[in-house]
Amino acid sequence: MSVTAPRGFRAAGVAAGLKASGAADIALVVNDGPDAGVAGVFTANRVKAAPVLWTQQVVRGGVVRAVVLNSGGANACTGPAGFSDTHATAEHTAAALTASSPRRLLGAGEVAVCSTGLIGERLPMPKLLPGVRTAIRGLARDGGAAAAEAIMTTDTRPKTTVANGSGWTVGGMAKGAGMLAPAMATMLCVLTTDAVAGPDTLDAALRAATRVTFDRIDSDGCMSTNDTVLLLASGASGIGPTEAELTAVVTAACHDLAQQLIADAEGATKQIAIDVVGAASEDDAVEVGRSVARNNLVKTALFGNDPNWGRILAAVGTTSAAFEPDGLDVAVNGIWVCRAGAAAEDRSKVDLAGRDVTIRIDLHAGDAAATIWTNDLSHAYVHENSAYST
Amino acid sequence: MSVTAPRGFRAAGVAAGLKASGAADIALVVNDGPDAGVAGVFTANRVKAAPVLWTQQVVRGGVVRAVVLNSGGANACTGPAGFSDTHATAEHTAAALTASSPRRLLGAGEVAVCSTGLIGERLPMPKLLPGVRTAIRGLARDGGAAAAEAIMTTDTRPKTTVANGSGWTVGGMAKGAGMLAPAMATMLCVLTTDAVAGPDTLDAALRAATRVTFDRIDSDGCMSTNDTVLLLASGASGIGPTEAELTAVVTAACHDLAQQLIADAEGATKQIAIDVVGAASEDDAVEVGRSVARNNLVKTALFGNDPNWGRILAAVGTTSAAFEPDGLDVAVNGIWVCRAGAAAEDRSKVDLAGRDVTIRIDLHAGDAAATIWTNDLSHAYVHENSAYST
Repeated sequence: MSVTAPRGFRAAGVAAGLKASGAADIALVVNDGPDAGVAGVFTANRVKAAPVLWTQQVVRGGVVRAVVLNSGGANACTGPAGFSDTHATAEHTAAALTASSPRRLLGAGEVAVCSTGLIGERLPMPKLLPGVRTAIRGLARDGGAAAAEAIMTTDTRPKTTVANGSGWTVGGMAKGAGMLAPAMATMLCVLTTDAVAGPDTLDAALRAATRVTFDRIDSDGCMSTNDTVLLLASGASGIGPTEAELTAVVTAACHDLAQQLIADAEGATKQIAIDVVGAASEDDAVEVGRSVARNNLVKTALFGNDPNWGRILAAVGTTSAAFEPDGLDVAVNGIWVCRAGAAAEDRSKVDLAGRDVTIRIDLHAGDAAATIWTNDLSHAYVHENSAYST
Repeated sequence: MSVTAPRGFRAAGVAAGLKASGAADIALVVNDGPDAGVAGVFTANRVKAAPVLWTQQVVRGGVVRAVVLNSGGANACTGPAGFSDTHATAEHTAAALTASSPRRLLGAGEVAVCSTGLIGERLPMPKLLPGVRTAIRGLARDGGAAAAEAIMTTDTRPKTTVANGSGWTVGGMAKGAGMLAPAMATMLCVLTTDAVAGPDTLDAALRAATRVTFDRIDSDGCMSTNDTVLLLASGASGIGPTEAELTAVVTAACHDLAQQLIADAEGATKQIAIDVVGAASEDDAVEVGRSVARNNLVKTALFGNDPNWGRILAAVGTTSAAFEPDGLDVAVNGIWVCRAGAAAEDRSKVDLAGRDVTIRIDLHAGDAAATIWTNDLSHAYVHENSAYST
């Protein structure tokens, strides 16, 4: 049910011809209220796409009644002309929505815009704007699945989630399959809820949730120009959860979507959890986990079903985390192949036949822990990313 | 001529059975003096192999008369037992060299040890020690080529260099094909010179040279546990160059070897120079160049002959260098595909058919510049590194 699982939301997904394949490429999510609360988290990349720059402003305004998303083009590195295209998309969406339901006046400043696809090319506006009108005509209370389909790029399947509170619900959709790295992945994500929540509560819940979910997946260490996660609140349930309750359910939704993103990462044959324990701080644990997750030699070894723990230690050694090199323990799928920085159990005992891999690293430096999720580096990743724009 | 080009050095390379293939796997370089000066630069990885820990101590002592190097095993992550193996290798080499030429007493503390190969396994000492004795019997004034062969791992060819001063010479050999990243690459390098130079001059020259050569190649972003660069000075020419003269010639030798390393990087089909200009500082230029060099999406695009400049901008955007996103220019092989952060010349004009690629990034933030050298990410890299230890 995706973003339309909570009350107060309609959505649509349509094909406007942005994708050469003819697949759906425009999604629209509309919040029918009564509230129009919003929170957003955006890419930390300093090279930000036009829709990110626009939507950051819109979210700062505190009211979002519609999100229009397109695949088939990122509208990043497109200069002032690209920003005008985003602005025109918001204006057009606001005007067409107002025309379709005149009882509610809607301004461009209440329309968030997200784009994904190739960087550096202008969007074909003569196709995009009619596509928005088609999407408006298709808006439906059960449109969440269609919207999730329309934001896919190299994704092999749509990603949707529903998480329930007591009498209220969080729904969500996401896309992303490569260029996945914090903060954040090359991903777009729209979350919706019918809970009643003020802007500070929404913002706190979203930041707490993304910090331990989307910010801890790292497919290929590459940070995108377009990453956007939005949380829209309609208030339609009439129920106002506590911040802790809202955070828990939003986190559950984000965790589910993050795992779907990593599971569908480009060309991946392994889904890898890196559990770092015994860290002096959570930051240390995250730094170590991320260093291992980004190490091409670790990732290619796992693609080859090779429990090459020496490469894991070499990756840990590049961090500034607190540890002693001769105090490191490493287990791969439960076999402690390294104890005290040297070989321990026989690496041949490690079973890497399955898709799921767990690497456990004990730094023996404290009580903090964190998990980073990643995937292997395969021939298919190289193939897919050497042939994307041509 | 490699390390035996300068006067005062002998070398050998022999097969001791460390490599299953039966190829040469032990190299020995002996400095016959009259001087025995040394400088060294080592991996910044905190997980350091036993031979690195040993050789750092030896170099601190200021006198090195012999370097024994083995391929077929890195002796990294092998604990106290691995350190004992390195110590025993140095003791054995010193004793056997003294026995072979009793007029010069040689202590273990004057013997540097370098190892390369798989991390996490003990070296087969019953093969290694007899190999050292065989190498001593084979020491020759023209043994540089054989020594360079014996340190190869996944290298497809030996790397040697000779650079001339006025009446004195620098020779060198290096190995390394993957796990190439600063500081430093997975590399071993022995440089020799017959110049007369004190320890401070040797150290200054070597640090200045590696800073702009080995520290600016980045094959796969992975930092090794074993990287070692040694500069040995025999003084046999009787000529004492200035520090600037020595630095220039050592830099030329290091540059030549660094380019050979990148040219032979595992599975590479492209040799890529990333010229960053208009930077506010050299550090900024290096940070930007390295970020692009480590971006898997840029590297796979180039493997696919795709001038995907948007991925280059996305990589630049992850740095903390001074620049304005809408002030970035990027050229690929001379075609300015991006001006002011947006598309400029048609990307179809870029000719990527050849092996050499130059990416030029103008940050428009100052007058500093730096070049980082890297290679593409290919199917062959994935293949080679998914099947290395098994």
